[in-house]
Order: sequence, then C-alpha cells, then structure tokens
Amino acid sequence: MKAKVLSLLREQYPEYISGEEISQRLGVSRTAVWKHIHKLRESGYQIESHTRIGYRLVHVPDRLYEHELIGLLKTKLIGRKIVYRETVCSTNELAKELAQEGAAEGTVVIAEEQTGGKGRMGRSWYSPSGQGLWFSVILRPQISTAGVSKITLVSAVAVAKSIREVTGLQAGIKWPNDILIDNRKVSGILTEMNAEIDRVNYLILGIGVNVNTRPELMPPELAGTATSLAEQKGARISRIELLASILNDLDAAYREFIKGNFAPILSLWKEMSVTLNRWVRISSINDTDEGIAFDVDDEGALLLMKKDGSMKRILSGDVSLR
Amino acid sequence: MKAKVLSLLREQYPEYISGEEISQRLGVSRTAVWKHIHKLRESGYQIESHTRIGYRLVHVPDRLYEHELIGLLKTKLIGRKIVYRETVCSTNELAKELAQEGAAEGTVVIAEEQTGGKGRMGRSWYSPSGQGLWFSVILRPQISTAGVSKITLVSAVAVAKSIREVTGLQAGIKWPNDILIDNRKVSGILTEMNAEIDRVNYLILGIGVNVNTRPELMPPELAGTATSLAEQKGARISRIELLASILNDLDAAYREFIKGNFAPILSLWKEMSVTLNRWVRISSINDTDEGIAFDVDDEGALLLMKKDGSMKRILSGDVSLR
Repeated sequence: MKAKVLSLLREQYPEYISGEEISQRLGVSRTAVWKHIHKLRESGYQIESHTRIGYRLVHVPDRLYEHELIGLLKTKLIGRKIVYRETVCSTNELAKELAQEGAAEGTVVIAEEQTGGKGRMGRSWYSPSGQGLWFSVILRPQISTAGVSKITLVSAVAVAKSIREVTGLQAGIKWPNDILIDNRKVSGILTEMNAEIDRVNYLILGIGVNVNTRPELMPPELAGTATSLAEQKGARISRIELLASILNDLDAAYREFIKGNFAPILSLWKEMSVTLNRWVRISSINDTDEGIAFDVDDEGALLLMKKDGSMKRILSGDVSLR
Repeated sequence: MKAKVLSLLREQYPEYISGEEISQRLGVSRTAVWKHIHKLRESGYQIESHTRIGYRLVHVPDRLYEHELIGLLKTKLIGRKIVYRETVCSTNELAKELAQEGAAEGTVVIAEEQTGGKGRMGRSWYSPSGQGLWFSVILRPQISTAGVSKITLVSAVAVAKSIREVTGLQAGIKWPNDILIDNRKVSGILTEMNAEIDRVNYLILGIGVNVNTRPELMPPELAGTATSLAEQKGARISRIELLASILNDLDAAYREFIKGNFAPILSLWKEMSVTLNRWVRISSINDTDEGIAFDVDDEGALLLMKKDGSMKRILSGDVSLR
C-alpha cells in the first residue's frame, strides 16, 4: 500500500494530489492515507502537504528499498524474493543462513551497509552506508562444482555490462571476476558454495560495487588500487538503477547459462576482459606463475603461456597485471 | 575421572577392587568413587559390588563413548575434539553447524543413531541406533575445490583398509567412494564442502558403516544391494575398534595427503578398487555413459573408455557395475 501511495504521488508530480483522491483511488480511509504518508516520510521521502491542496513528493531518498526496486526489475528468477536491511555484518553470511533454511533460488539480500563485508581469500570489503551496492544472490543451479567458475564469469559479465550501460564508463573484467576502470577496482564478486562432490546445493554470489564511495574516505590500503564509479564519472550515479540493471542482466545471462548457452556469455567476457593477451602474474594457494594470459577455456580456467612456451591451466588465483 | 575409575576396574578385571583402593589411588573420597560407579552404571556398564570386597566390571556396553574411544586413538589431528550424541538428525548437519561456528580441524561428530541420515545425491541413509558407525569429520585443508575429490579417495582408502584389518573381510572400493563386500554396499561416504572458487573453507566427511545392522530390518529398497559387516562375517564386530581404526588410518592418510604425498594413497585406492577394468555405466547430473573404467587420474576423476575407443574424464557420478 505504501508503494501504491508512492506511485500516485509520482504520477501526479510536480502537481499536488489531494488526500481525498488518494483515499478514493486506493479505496482506503483518509486516516490510512495519512499513516502511509507518515511512514514514507519516516523512510526518508520528503512530501509537502498543504491543507485543501494535498500532498506533493519533493525528494526521494537514495535507498535501495524493495518497493522502489521492484518497479525496475524485468527478471524472472532473480529478485523473486528480496531481503532488505539497513545494516548487516555481511550479505553473504545472511544469504548463507537463509539458503541453509531453504530460501528459494533467486533470493536477493541487499544492505545499505556491511559492517563486516567480505572479499575473496578472507579479505575484507569496505562497505560504507549508502555509498555502494552490497548484495548477495542465492542460486541453486543443478551443476557439479566444476561448473561454478562459469557462474562467476556469468556474474562478472552482468556487472561489467551494466556498469557500461548505466554509466557509459569503460568497465573491464580482470580474470576471474574483478571489474576495473582505468586499471582500478570498482567491483568484486565473492562466490561461495555449499556442495557435495557431485552437486552444488546452493551458491551465493556476493557482489560489491563502489558506486558513490568517496575515495578520500577509503581505507589507506585501497589508495591507488580502488576507485568508485562516481569518481570516474565525476558525478553521482543512481545506485538503484545500477542495481536493477545488474539484476536484470544477471537474470538473463544466468537463465541462458542454465539452458546450456554459455558460449555467448564467454565471448562477452572475452570482449570485456582486460587480462587476455597481457603479461600477468598469478598467485594461487600454492604457486606463483608468470606468463601471457593466453585464453580462458570453456570452464572458465585461465590458460597461461609461460616464458618457455609451456601452457598452464589455472582454475583460481589472484592476477596482477604487469 | 569416570574414565580413570573405569580404567582401574579394567586393570583389576576379573578380580574385585575395593572402594578404599580406588579412593586412595585416585585421591578422591569414597563418596566420590560411589558416585562415579553410579554414573558408569547409568551409562550401561554392569559393575558388581560386594560389601568389604569392592567392585568388579562385568559388562561394557556397546557404545561409542568418547572416554572409550580416546584410549584407542593414535591420531594427531583427527579426534582432537569429539562430539558424542545418542541421537542426531544427521552428523553431517551437526558438523556443518559446528564448522560454521569455527570448530577446529579434526573435530569428529559421532552418533549412535541418525534420525535423518543423509546419503549422496539427496538420498537417505539408514542409521539405526547402535548398529553401525555414523560419524562426520571436519577438515580444513588449504586446497582449492578441485582437490576435494582426492580427499574422498583418501577417506575411502581409510575405511576399506580398516574394514579389512579389523574384520578380515575383502572390502573393495567402488568409484568414487562406496565400500562393497561381495558386491553389496557396507559403507558410504558423503563429502560436503563450504568453499569459495579459490579455496575450501571447510569440508565435512560423513562416513556411514553398516557394522552390525540386521539385514532383515533394513528398508526393503536396500534388499540385495546393502549388507553389513556382521552379516558377511557371521559374527558381531566391535564398532568402537573399527571406528578407532578408521580414524587412525584416516589421520595418517590425510596427513600424508596434506604433505603432498597423494601417489601412495592413490595406488592403495587402485589396489582395492572393484571398479577399474570393468564395464560400467555411470549416471551423472546430465549424462549417462557406458564403457570400461580404464583408470583414475591424479585428481580422482574416472577415465572411461567408451565403445568407440574414445576416452571420457568423469568427475562425479553413480557407477553401476555391469
């Protein structure tokens, strides 16, 4: 109902709409209308009111509210259920708990702030309130663990593509799933899974995007390596539009992947890659290798051509571009 | 202290030991001795007592108590912490919860009964009270998910080897990790993991062994395909001895694996395999294949030679021996 009141206010903007009209069109009492207006104001919406004229929406808060997001989604699977929190320790942790309790595929956990945001390899992820996108998606693909790397590529494509579409910035993908602009990181993806050898039970895609993060407030260890879309663009970016775009792109790409159409996604990945055909150093759990990032194979593994001409297939690791 | 009282009773067996002597040797009061004897009786130990003569142990219950198990363990890593329960829904589920809360590597969860025991591929596992071994081990290897199949082979070797040593029965391994005797299943292993693409956070080895399970009480769908060690041997088998042996073997083999010595484990696996060089049908999530089980490679994948001479590498699936 709050969403319906909001939609009437929007429809009428920049004019006023009377409480009487809202009450009639939604079939609720004047008191109920007043209560919803009050709730909207509490959520950060600025609504002017004048006796006998009515209400007018003057400011929409920069929040990732479900009732705002839903109108922008064209998804079939992802976002069927949305869990929104002002603050969480980590959206991946909350998503894991929900998945363990049986949450449906496509559940999205969104937070304005993470107090213990996680990156890959046990690192932390700086997630200040209201400045970025910090969200997790629960997926339940019927695949073996060997297929999970592919889904990481699917999600990297969705994020990079959306950033390009919404901001016009030249987002590139660093293998396997960092999104860079001008060689600095704007987004990272942390894929976690619960699996048997035979099959994935569930998979959590944790996506962080530095949207309007102010670079001067970033932790010093990120200086020079991280950036935000706003910093690159020189203007604030709408977080909710970008979020909707990522979820829409991810939904489309994931459903293609599930149908077995991975090839077009892989070629998009290659197009947007900033890793391929460059000299790289890759650190994995046990090894460090250097060479030319020659190609990415059908399973998402990086094929590294070493100095001596030998080829090494690498499933996971940290790439430094040289 | 209960364990110390028990050990004095054992030491003295078949003679009596006086309450006075127990009290002196352990430095506790006569009342304390009496209380411990009482607790032991409550746990199922039969202890005769005669005024002025003392106590005599006459029967040890068939239970997997931690204080009994510890004396049989020679492990360095596995069994550092033991969680014992009369009944649980599933030892893997409890182990997962403990691992999520940070339980140390080597934690073992043991139950006399599972009310919702799980098998691979979402199947159930018949786990009647006191008749088998139903336990889970928490491991935290520093490996990528690609290495997890190897640990499944490691555990299959430990279980098959222990069954051979303790019972003398010719246990064989069906790829990847079922233990068969006379072509019928006595043990299964359910490996579950929580992982990122890059690394395993933790891994749960769930091991079920039909030790003294009475075949006539097994669910009808297991008739003809499952058996128990007692049925094969024609005699009851000590569950706790077998459990200790499996944990000892697993500890040794896992520590070798961690050091990088997988080759000797793999050759033991091959020696005990009943799959290799046989015509098999393999059902995996998306495919069914038939052919000769030609070899198992260094990553635990099965190499299947098909009718047309082509070779297929299979990471996971269900094997039917033809």
